[in-house]
Amino acid sequence: MPPFLRRYLPILDWGSRYDRQTLESDALAAVIVTIMLIPQSLAYALLAGLPAEMGLYASILPLVAYAIFGTSRALAVGPVAVVSLMTAAAIGNLGLTEPAAIATAAVTLAFLSGLFLAMMGVLRLGFIANFLSHPVIAGFITASGILIAASQLKHILGVKASGHTLIETLETLFANLGQTNIWTLLIGVSATAFLFWVRKGLKPLLQRRGWSPRSADTAAKAGPVAAVVATTLFAWIFGLDSHGVAVVGDIPSGLPPLSAPSFDLGMWATLMGSAVLISIIGFVESVSVAQTLAAKRRQRIDPDQELVGLGASNIAAAISGGYPVTGGFSRSVVNFDAGAETPAAGAFTAIGITLAALLLTPLLFFLPKATLAATIIVAVLSLVDFSILKQAWTFSKADFFAVLTTILLTLGAGVEVGVSAGVVLSIFLHLYKTSRPHIAEIGLVPGTHHFRNIRRHEVETDPKVLTLRVDESLYFANARFLEDYIYDRVVGDSQLRHVILNFPAVNEVDLSALESLESILHRLKDMGIHLHLSEVKGPVMDRLKRSRFLGEMNGRVFLSQYDAWVALTNSNGTARAAE
Amino acid sequence: MPPFLRRYLPILDWGSRYDRQTLESDALAAVIVTIMLIPQSLAYALLAGLPAEMGLYASILPLVAYAIFGTSRALAVGPVAVVSLMTAAAIGNLGLTEPAAIATAAVTLAFLSGLFLAMMGVLRLGFIANFLSHPVIAGFITASGILIAASQLKHILGVKASGHTLIETLETLFANLGQTNIWTLLIGVSATAFLFWVRKGLKPLLQRRGWSPRSADTAAKAGPVAAVVATTLFAWIFGLDSHGVAVVGDIPSGLPPLSAPSFDLGMWATLMGSAVLISIIGFVESVSVAQTLAAKRRQRIDPDQELVGLGASNIAAAISGGYPVTGGFSRSVVNFDAGAETPAAGAFTAIGITLAALLLTPLLFFLPKATLAATIIVAVLSLVDFSILKQAWTFSKADFFAVLTTILLTLGAGVEVGVSAGVVLSIFLHLYKTSRPHIAEIGLVPGTHHFRNIRRHEVETDPKVLTLRVDESLYFANARFLEDYIYDRVVGDSQLRHVILNFPAVNEVDLSALESLESILHRLKDMGIHLHLSEVKGPVMDRLKRSRFLGEMNGRVFLSQYDAWVALTNSNGTARAAE
Repeated sequence: MPPFLRRYLPILDWGSRYDRQTLESDALAAVIVTIMLIPQSLAYALLAGLPAEMGLYASILPLVAYAIFGTSRALAVGPVAVVSLMTAAAIGNLGLTEPAAIATAAVTLAFLSGLFLAMMGVLRLGFIANFLSHPVIAGFITASGILIAASQLKHILGVKASGHTLIETLETLFANLGQTNIWTLLIGVSATAFLFWVRKGLKPLLQRRGWSPRSADTAAKAGPVAAVVATTLFAWIFGLDSHGVAVVGDIPSGLPPLSAPSFDLGMWATLMGSAVLISIIGFVESVSVAQTLAAKRRQRIDPDQELVGLGASNIAAAISGGYPVTGGFSRSVVNFDAGAETPAAGAFTAIGITLAALLLTPLLFFLPKATLAATIIVAVLSLVDFSILKQAWTFSKADFFAVLTTILLTLGAGVEVGVSAGVVLSIFLHLYKTSRPHIAEIGLVPGTHHFRNIRRHEVETDPKVLTLRVDESLYFANARFLEDYIYDRVVGDSQLRHVILNFPAVNEVDLSALESLESILHRLKDMGIHLHLSEVKGPVMDRLKRSRFLGEMNGRVFLSQYDAWVALTNSNGTARAAE
Repeated sequence: MPPFLRRYLPILDWGSRYDRQTLESDALAAVIVTIMLIPQSLAYALLAGLPAEMGLYASILPLVAYAIFGTSRALAVGPVAVVSLMTAAAIGNLGLTEPAAIATAAVTLAFLSGLFLAMMGVLRLGFIANFLSHPVIAGFITASGILIAASQLKHILGVKASGHTLIETLETLFANLGQTNIWTLLIGVSATAFLFWVRKGLKPLLQRRGWSPRSADTAAKAGPVAAVVATTLFAWIFGLDSHGVAVVGDIPSGLPPLSAPSFDLGMWATLMGSAVLISIIGFVESVSVAQTLAAKRRQRIDPDQELVGLGASNIAAAISGGYPVTGGFSRSVVNFDAGAETPAAGAFTAIGITLAALLLTPLLFFLPKATLAATIIVAVLSLVDFSILKQAWTFSKADFFAVLTTILLTLGAGVEVGVSAGVVLSIFLHLYKTSRPHIAEIGLVPGTHHFRNIRRHEVETDPKVLTLRVDESLYFANARFLEDYIYDRVVGDSQLRHVILNFPAVNEVDLSALESLESILHRLKDMGIHLHLSEVKGPVMDRLKRSRFLGEMNGRVFLSQYDAWVALTNSNGTARAAE
């Protein structure tokens, strides 16, 4: 088999060793995930501002595509909360009102996202996701959780509200508070309370009654299904749809339709930025859960192939009436705990959802939207975790500032602004930090060959010789800082004859830094001062040899700082005597 | 005197020691710079698409403002070629046709640029300019030089042409080639040839005739004035303006008018991005020439105060009918060589230009635009230097890629796109490089306490112990790389019991990297492997102590890698025996 086939089609690897026992494990996991996914897929479609069936469609073909192209043995792909919220924001930018146009926009967004992910994977650009710092993601997820929960309150109350920011959402909600529907509120509050109880109270209760922790956990995961069944029956028996309770209504029954993205370049231009953000956020979330789960079984995943897998899933969503998908955190953990051993579990889940789409949709007519909102609220509030702020505050003020900005901008200006600002700010703060590297003036520790910071240790110095240890790679953002530092230190010091730059922590020198070193050299020459280097790393030395710098130097390159000291000072007797 | 006054008003420092001898030096330098600046200021205004007198106005009050607020003793402020080109591009974005509106836009651009520079200076944000890498600037200047020269060809030929990119400019030029005015062409080509000869041939000639190098140089600098006088007389005598030769025409005589920027927020929004780019490019060019000249006399400049000085100059330009200014390279070198000792030389130059504005303007009516174009072409072609490409190619492919992109985009898509792309690409390439740090697996050099890369040296290893030396600070962009690297190495190595991370070159650990270290720790724990650290730097250790990481570790932190080796292996006899 050609190696590229094996690389791009991981199914060929695990599929060739597939046996009956693996099948049984995968099938059991698929049943549990299907039960969890049915209400989730409907609810997240609602959150994305799309018809409920698009949630089901996004949970069929994309799972099959991931099973073929994905590398994680436990990742459960499908609609997830944050990506659904971002989908709503992206489609909102288009200002569409026609349901068919909105559906096409969602399909197009999935297509663009799929193309981008697959392209990144083929070009092995997975490292781009690393430019999102962990604290920024944590802040973004927390703020998104709050935004999502706030956006669902309208369904709990049965009023109209909208907005991409927390303030807009709450303002429109309060303005319409008078129209609250009492039946909707009853269902919404009961379902929310029940689901919180299932999450916090049911599991311990079952365990006290002798259930094993694992079966108690599985039972708790079925809580949303119980809420769906109970409230649907309630709404049907009392005919609550005629009392103003919003229900899911007609869901077309049958297999996912064939769909095609729009090829309108204007729409592509508007959606492309959002598709990139959705892809990166989705990938980062997905790859981190996949890595965590893989490590537990000493397996590994290939992040670049994961991009191909998620790209294929999104393209599959785009041709089968779905919307952007990614690997879900809680769902993947359930899949893993339930014993999924290969990506085939995802394909079996797709069969489960297909059966639901074929057979269950008529039964969901009376499902109150308030119940779906309750399942979303309970799910996303577990994402909200402000401890990142405290952790960042104690660990690093720069990280704290980035997280706080991300949270405030996500809540105050929407998901796209929030996460973009977080990325830009993280990069900026990193450049800022490395643009002012630590530079220490060092001297000889008496009786040794070691050199230490003259401000912190009692060391020997020589007024003719200045040694500076640079604690950072030199590149364009800090090259000029080094220049300024040296001029500040050297100007007015009339005794000085030698400057030694001590480079053991300099891992790289780029062309800007080389030009700065040349400027430093020429200016020191003008002042009659010799410039020397010591302890230059191999790769840095290789580079310098390809430039004119070494030829122009009026000083020497010393292998060790001690050699430089001995050569340039007359006071070398001290250290020698101590040997 | 309060220290902030001394900081923000460098004039108080040098002004208090000003004497007759300094005055004489400054005045002589001012005369030479004035002679050079009169044709330059008119020509650059033409390049910026503005009336000629705005060039003169930009050379009066801005120079006085810099004399008060600037720190360089030799910088000559005023209109410069690249900033004039960028001004033309910025104003072009507004799509104005009315001359008064164009003049207001130029004044507003100077005002915004001045505000931005002054604000950066007061907030001490001069380091932002460092994010422009040297090779990107070099590429940008070279490409701008070509663009400027191309844009002036129309004046040499006497045809109409326009465009912000090289292709647009040349296309419109060729389309109108049929309308070439023979008299204009004669003047333009003769002036260009004369100025090239002055630059290359006159100075050696004069030296051969016994002139001192310095006077020969000064005479050569007066070349443009000679060309202006000769071609103006020629145009006047033969009445060439009625033969289709474009002349400068009426320049209002008198002091600069009081002007006010527009406060239209729409215009601010459109111009702000351009103002930021103009400010940063202008500052970078200015500060580097100021630093070079200051170093020659063992003086120093304060880059943050330079921002204040250039900010004040641009605000002065905005209130006196000028347009964006900065420190010019060749003019500053002339000023320095002519003996300028303090910023007062700039103020004296301003007096010279004022006299020109009062007395000379009627004489400039017949000055052919082709002559001004010739002075621009000869001046900017000295900026064009493709050697940066060769230098970058041998030194670093990443830098080469950044320079090439900057040059191609500047020529093909205009100055603003070109320089922005250069900045973004430099930052991206830096992040990319540091996102894949060098990680070496190290072992003990027999008979010593030193550890070296196992791939490059004969060293002792232990199948139970893996030691990795990380040659880069750990931060969000490379945190996941370290995770992946460790998992790849560890998965499948069933003998492994200990992983030691050797941190002597890790200057920083941010919160993302901390989380990665925690993930690594938990996954290694799951695999039954102990994680240890060795040779952690003080500031990094301080940070780790503020987190839970050290408490959760299942291994130890060793002061030296040798201590770790002795503690974790049984084969410590070798090294000990060698002592």
